[in-house]
Amino acid sequence: MRSFEVKHRTTVDDIRALRLITAIKTPYLPDGRFDLEAYDRLMHMQIAGGAEGVIVGGTTGEGHLMSWDEHIMLIGHTVNCFGSKIKVIGNTGSNSTGEAVHATEQGFAVGMHAALHINPYYGKTSIQGLIAHFDAVMLMGPTVVYNVPSRTGQDIPPPVINALAINPNLAGVKECMGNERIKGYTDKGVVTWSGNDDECHDARWMYGATGVISVTSNLIPGLMHSLMFEGENAVLRDKVMPLMKWLFVEPNPIGLNTALAQLGVIRPVFRLPYYPLPHEMRIEFVRIVKELGRENFVGQREVEVLNDDDFIIVGRY
Amino acid sequence: MRSFEVKHRTTVDDIRALRLITAIKTPYLPDGRFDLEAYDRLMHMQIAGGAEGVIVGGTTGEGHLMSWDEHIMLIGHTVNCFGSKIKVIGNTGSNSTGEAVHATEQGFAVGMHAALHINPYYGKTSIQGLIAHFDAVMLMGPTVVYNVPSRTGQDIPPPVINALAINPNLAGVKECMGNERIKGYTDKGVVTWSGNDDECHDARWMYGATGVISVTSNLIPGLMHSLMFEGENAVLRDKVMPLMKWLFVEPNPIGLNTALAQLGVIRPVFRLPYYPLPHEMRIEFVRIVKELGRENFVGQREVEVLNDDDFIIVGRY
Amino acid sequence: MRSFEVKHRTTVDDIRALRLITAIKTPYLPDGRFDLEAYDRLMHMQIAGGAEGVIVGGTTGEGHLMSWDEHIMLIGHTVNCFGSKIKVIGNTGSNSTGEAVHATEQGFAVGMHAALHINPYYGKTSIQGLIAHFDAVMLMGPTVVYNVPSRTGQDIPPPVINALAINPNLAGVKECMGNERIKGYTDKGVVTWSGNDDECHDARWMYGATGVISVTSNLIPGLMHSLMFEGENAVLRDKVMPLMKWLFVEPNPIGLNTALAQLGVIRPVFRLPYYPLPHEMRIEFVRIVKELGRENFVGQREVEVLNDDDFIIVGRY
Amino acid sequence: MRSFEVKHRTTVDDIRALRLITAIKTPYLPDGRFDLEAYDRLMHMQIAGGAEGVIVGGTTGEGHLMSWDEHIMLIGHTVNCFGSKIKVIGNTGSNSTGEAVHATEQGFAVGMHAALHINPYYGKTSIQGLIAHFDAVMLMGPTVVYNVPSRTGQDIPPPVINALAINPNLAGVKECMGNERIKGYTDKGVVTWSGNDDECHDARWMYGATGVISVTSNLIPGLMHSLMFEGENAVLRDKVMPLMKWLFVEPNPIGLNTALAQLGVIRPVFRLPYYPLPHEMRIEFVRIVKELGRENFVGQREVEVLNDDDFIIVGRY
Repeated sequence: MRSFEVKHRTTVDDIRALRLITAIKTPYLPDGRFDLEAYDRLMHMQIAGGAEGVIVGGTTGEGHLMSWDEHIMLIGHTVNCFGSKIKVIGNTGSNSTGEAVHATEQGFAVGMHAALHINPYYGKTSIQGLIAHFDAVMLMGPTVVYNVPSRTGQDIPPPVINALAINPNLAGVKECMGNERIKGYTDKGVVTWSGNDDECHDARWMYGATGVISVTSNLIPGLMHSLMFEGENAVLRDKVMPLMKWLFVEPNPIGLNTALAQLGVIRPVFRLPYYPLPHEMRIEFVRIVKELGRENFVGQREVEVLNDDDFIIVGRY
Repeated sequence: MRSFEVKHRTTVDDIRALRLITAIKTPYLPDGRFDLEAYDRLMHMQIAGGAEGVIVGGTTGEGHLMSWDEHIMLIGHTVNCFGSKIKVIGNTGSNSTGEAVHATEQGFAVGMHAALHINPYYGKTSIQGLIAHFDAVMLMGPTVVYNVPSRTGQDIPPPVINALAINPNLAGVKECMGNERIKGYTDKGVVTWSGNDDECHDARWMYGATGVISVTSNLIPGLMHSLMFEGENAVLRDKVMPLMKWLFVEPNPIGLNTALAQLGVIRPVFRLPYYPLPHEMRIEFVRIVKELGRENFVGQREVEVLNDDDFIIVGRY
Repeated sequence: MRSFEVKHRTTVDDIRALRLITAIKTPYLPDGRFDLEAYDRLMHMQIAGGAEGVIVGGTTGEGHLMSWDEHIMLIGHTVNCFGSKIKVIGNTGSNSTGEAVHATEQGFAVGMHAALHINPYYGKTSIQGLIAHFDAVMLMGPTVVYNVPSRTGQDIPPPVINALAINPNLAGVKECMGNERIKGYTDKGVVTWSGNDDECHDARWMYGATGVISVTSNLIPGLMHSLMFEGENAVLRDKVMPLMKWLFVEPNPIGLNTALAQLGVIRPVFRLPYYPLPHEMRIEFVRIVKELGRENFVGQREVEVLNDDDFIIVGRY
Repeated sequence: MRSFEVKHRTTVDDIRALRLITAIKTPYLPDGRFDLEAYDRLMHMQIAGGAEGVIVGGTTGEGHLMSWDEHIMLIGHTVNCFGSKIKVIGNTGSNSTGEAVHATEQGFAVGMHAALHINPYYGKTSIQGLIAHFDAVMLMGPTVVYNVPSRTGQDIPPPVINALAINPNLAGVKECMGNERIKGYTDKGVVTWSGNDDECHDARWMYGATGVISVTSNLIPGLMHSLMFEGENAVLRDKVMPLMKWLFVEPNPIGLNTALAQLGVIRPVFRLPYYPLPHEMRIEFVRIVKELGRENFVGQREVEVLNDDDFIIVGRY
């Protein structure tokens, strides 16, 4: 099931050229459904801030908390509204090959420009299984392979990436295993994005990375754009480091969700199992914003410290 | 859950102005999945033939044989590829209000220009229930209400339509109860499309109908365009009548599916419970095509009589 | 996908012997989810009242307002809790052959004793399509075919039933087209249940019907049992007729839902598009209960007239 | 949504008493659907071999490759057919709290005796999030919490288990973090099952574990029963060790699937991303079977070395 008609069809090389890709947050209404108006505002902020691509329904966007119909709808929505201005990379990966194949077909059918594919987390598999899984999903269009062993429980080792690199649909790798690993790929001409915000400056300027797939850029797209486009800048890198450390004190997107709510750009609604950062961390965030400068962050409202009972925690969604 | 960002956002008046809307066929691959390449070709033929809108996943498009994720995907796909050239009306109706609400939200989120809504077929309900059902689904955007008692088992009587006409989202009515019923609505200013191809010429030129939502236009879009745009023309009306009679000798889309397969524009694949017309009717179709002129039909291949074993009948899909 | 292990496996002849089958109501919690505690109570009332079988998720049970996972879960639940005391007939029919095949496999896998299958309503099909549809779903176990043209828009004519009667899985027919039609089948040895409560006494005693698949027995199982088991009884028939007329003044299960709520055995929660009967009809119900005798109805609470704002109408479920 | 009617309702103490629980394999037909006949045979072998409980749709049973309707159906099926002879523990856990809540409600509704719950793998969360997740799913009945950081990417640390131990629904913990961790729990009275077959003998007899939730018992239920019931037996432990090492040379259930196919008790069908062990490992398995004694393994056919093209690998399921 494929189509050659989709708008803004994107070549693998177009994807390879992207330097700043944001793993966009999915905001919610108080009953746990998507808040598309807030989502659209976040998308505008990313475009204004210089992001060239978004990951829709990544781990940051809580794709693992979506039904597939929600997920494909959100990809289709993003393409429809913003696809002429920014590249839309749908996270249609899954630890079920069957689901990944189906979702990837659907995602390309609604116009996504590329797919993000994870190795089978939790279930895991053998090297042969890994390759068979990626072969099954990479048929359909430009693909970014995502390696994050701290989540998946299983590293995608370099020989697997090297085997996949023969496939013309491989746009590149989102790599979280550090800059030495990245260098190994970029030395061989495999396009690589850092998946660790705190390492991305060095990855870009010292280890050959093309850019970053970023969480932090949800908050400070302009500064992340500077980091990726304006040359080596250790001062800026060090300046944003406290924010990055804060963001990842608990598993992502807990910090991000808390931050965006305090910046007033999303409603303070969490789908479980995510839970807001504690009060002292929320105070700390306001301090960090003031230090970095409110104007560098998305949104116009004054940053505020939310109270425990400002948050809505949704268990049935 | 709504968005104000969708491309080619369409006003209710834009929908009201459409004269030729095709209830587009959904073609299948041999394993029963959608054949998007064939679908895209059918869409191009409609645009070339002058159709101004399509119903995606209507009864003709076999929406009732789709899972909702397939259905919303197909709407999103159509918007993405053809939404700047033709209006996309998604059939997000259901006899379950819950499903209709959910699907309509999703359909508008992926950019459909209007929704088609049926009354609750099979389950049926009271007049109060009918109005509550339509009220629940008409909140979200321009809406065409569809009345076809021969399928639903329940007429939507004029008082219900009159009650719904207060809602600014009511674009109009697709009416299959005949031209007197249509006249009753058009006299009051309610936009109405004929849902019966064999009555649509008269509906348009003698009873005030705005146009037609057509099955036949899948086959002869140009002639249907003439019927709707070029003034009263009893000669043309009578000339296409044998084709229309042939098309509806069995419940739609049985005739249409058979015809498109014989014209070589789709694969001869049926999802059950649909089943090809018998051989003598297939011979008759070729005769009708020759009489009306092959050049008036979609596709370029020679029309042929398919054999029983040319057809693939799929029960698990 | 089949199993020979299921408990209380039931032969086609066991199904053919049932005289009183209740199309059981599905009750809801205020948020629209199933109220299983109330459901279990209703099931106990049916068993105590003499019902020998239940249809789970029929039109009365609002199967068309369920997701398939809810529907199969409810069948599995009923089998688990009550399958040793009453026959569980799952309505795994659909106008989509694909969905009907999948649901029927699942229903038998969780232990249902027989399947109820409707012809493809709304979509409709040809005679060949009808037979192909039923052939696809009747492979899996004992099957009751259901004919109700006032809902489906298409009669299943006697030649189709006669063709299906060759299939050893055909347990019989639930027929709503009247007692002459029933007689035609029973004369030929096809087991038939009346699908019209008001005609079932005559069907049973004068036209050869085996029994009834009843809505009214949700309310007065004992009296319906008498009607089906204790010989011709025109007095009793006429005595319950006003209740039956009342129940069907609007499309079923609107009357039934209203009645059970007023009897205090379910919460007054409606899934749209169903809507409570108006106040004057609710008063009328109390009068009917008093005339027939509260003790003949399910539940122990005093029957009451509910107010408009006692009812909860759920649109998203 | 709950019911007090389910058959063979099981107390938390009944679950706590189980010593040998098998994480049962799900076998497939060549098109990737479930092979229920083979499944039923496997279940009989487990009952005959002395297993007291099964995990349905665990990681071994490839629950992560099932749609939820398949998963709940399989739980309902197992309860219906075998629930009077063996305890049925449904793996209704998920990294989505919403899905876990829904599935757990449904699993208990169809009669499962207990739920297995994993912490949110891949997505991960904070300690507060972990506790909120477990609180949301443990309301509904007896619960086994499963800790396997090598799959989930996140350890459930002892303070979380200690917090959950207050909940009367906590039956116990399936722990893969080793026998010292197990001892810490059992010293405090928290029932614990070893999740590592190679450590389970020592866990049971030296560290206080109640028993094992086993993969190996799919193959040699009788020997695993001896290990758990017949006292310390280092000889037997060491004798089965080579089989256990072989089984886990690649991520489970790759070895198990290969083994069961070679024993002739399931068809050699794999759902991707699982892929058969290579030929030399398949030869090695036959050697191990002969050494341990064919009679100790499930099935009666001679064990054979399958060839590469004997296996069917299914990507769309």
